[in-house]
Amino acid sequence: KGDAQAGEAKAMTCVACHGMSGKASAPLYPNIGGQSEAYLEHSLQAYKKGERSGGQAEIMKAYVSGLSDEDISNLAAYYASMKP
Amino acid sequence: KGDAQAGEAKAMTCVACHGMSGKASAPLYPNIGGQSEAYLEHSLQAYKKGERSGGQAEIMKAYVSGLSDEDISNLAAYYASMKP
Repeated sequence: KGDAQAGEAKAMTCVACHGMSGKASAPLYPNIGGQSEAYLEHSLQAYKKGERSGGQAEIMKAYVSGLSDEDISNLAAYYASMKP
Repeated sequence: KGDAQAGEAKAMTCVACHGMSGKASAPLYPNIGGQSEAYLEHSLQAYKKGERSGGQAEIMKAYVSGLSDEDISNLAAYYASMKP
């Protein structure tokens, strides 16, 4: 289980598209506030492993490439801790 | 824009994992109720186009392969119409 507070410190690049409270800034981006921690972690790892392509996936892959597994766990915990 | 009522009629196979009201039945599955319609449509199309792999993506690809573009629009409208 990740550390939500540590995740917050890594979320500066997420907010442009996913909002300060996990509400997306445009319809094409998913709302991620309150999403399940396990699914958020899975999704971020899927980008990191190159398991998603097309659409905004290339952007996500670029961002996620700089994150450690621990960063990913912490970000998942941070967004999961928000209200949907 | 999809037809939520028509989407409901196609959602019988979705509910086992994503719940009757878009709340996932297990942590690894995403909550999809109240997600943005554009993102839901994008995600379903990404499975259909083979742009996602790994984890449960193989299961989603199998389900989505039987859906038309119109079915996908309608399902996106249906889940987007729910409360998160």
